[in-house]
Amino acid sequence: MAISQRQLTLDEFLKLPEEEPALEFEEGTVTQKVSPKGQHSALQYEVAELFNRFARPRRLARAFPELRVTFAGRSYVPDVAVYRWDRIPVDAAGRVANDFFEPPDMVVEIVSLEQSTNAVVRRCLWYVGRGVSVALLVDPADESVLVFRPGQVPQALRGPDEIDFADILPAFKLPVQALFDALRMSALTP
Amino acid sequence: MAISQRQLTLDEFLKLPEEEPALEFEEGTVTQKVSPKGQHSALQYEVAELFNRFARPRRLARAFPELRVTFAGRSYVPDVAVYRWDRIPVDAAGRVANDFFEPPDMVVEIVSLEQSTNAVVRRCLWYVGRGVSVALLVDPADESVLVFRPGQVPQALRGPDEIDFADILPAFKLPVQALFDALRMSALTP
Repeated sequence: MAISQRQLTLDEFLKLPEEEPALEFEEGTVTQKVSPKGQHSALQYEVAELFNRFARPRRLARAFPELRVTFAGRSYVPDVAVYRWDRIPVDAAGRVANDFFEPPDMVVEIVSLEQSTNAVVRRCLWYVGRGVSVALLVDPADESVLVFRPGQVPQALRGPDEIDFADILPAFKLPVQALFDALRMSALTP
Repeated sequence: MAISQRQLTLDEFLKLPEEEPALEFEEGTVTQKVSPKGQHSALQYEVAELFNRFARPRRLARAFPELRVTFAGRSYVPDVAVYRWDRIPVDAAGRVANDFFEPPDMVVEIVSLEQSTNAVVRRCLWYVGRGVSVALLVDPADESVLVFRPGQVPQALRGPDEIDFADILPAFKLPVQALFDALRMSALTP
């Protein structure tokens, strides 16, 4: 939902103080992320952890939850942004930079019933049209994942279907069910 | 949301009495449409009317609101189903048939915040993978339309963007704004 009546420039937007939930900027309009709830939080952590557990020890990629990314005239805070290792921006001291102005390699958005369907689909189409290789739309209500890639028909995956990350993380496969198991206390392994 | 615990066959499903909101059937599971609200009702009528006003006098196509369509193993009640004139099933007396077992040429679904994002997108992808030429996802919260066509990346259209129906209704163009004007009392022409 728009929270500002007047149109801002990207520079004006980036000068605003950060808020919680995070503000986002799209075509002159400032919107605010939805309040984080239990299923959202559990899935957001699980996605980041599944990626990091595989990709960090191998120095292949790193997943950042709730990271502001600003590129192609917009500023979003995806639920999880994944950057391949050699694309993670660093400061002069070799530490992870504070500001990210390049598109992530992968973006994960976890939808909730409070969000407009078309707005989140439009966002995923925008991501993969502006340099992101894979955008995942994770829907706990439907226990499904929509996979968006540049120039391709979105795939709808459920249950035992595996998400294939060949383009950014060869050898990493993620069964959709593994994600949603994070919502079931009984399915959690220590 | 699933409303039946046990899996049904399509034949078993089709024998169930009709309910309001309508029941739908997908992969063994029975679900119920969401309750119709003001914006949904206004948009559903407007879409059907815009199509019929153009296509009925020309005997090109006909739009049916709330019509049960059963094909490829599923049974849905799209908000609006459009059939080209020569594909409308008729009975022995030349009247519109009661049962539709062929995919519509176009389907329009109007989303609400109560619906799962991925479930409605999955449905549109299924439609255009099973013989439907165009599926529109109309979102009053976002004032946008997602256009799905077989084998193509979905298009996100807003405001002055025109939906092009060349494949099913040449010469008919529908600006997205014309649809959402139906929600503004001040924009309504007599």
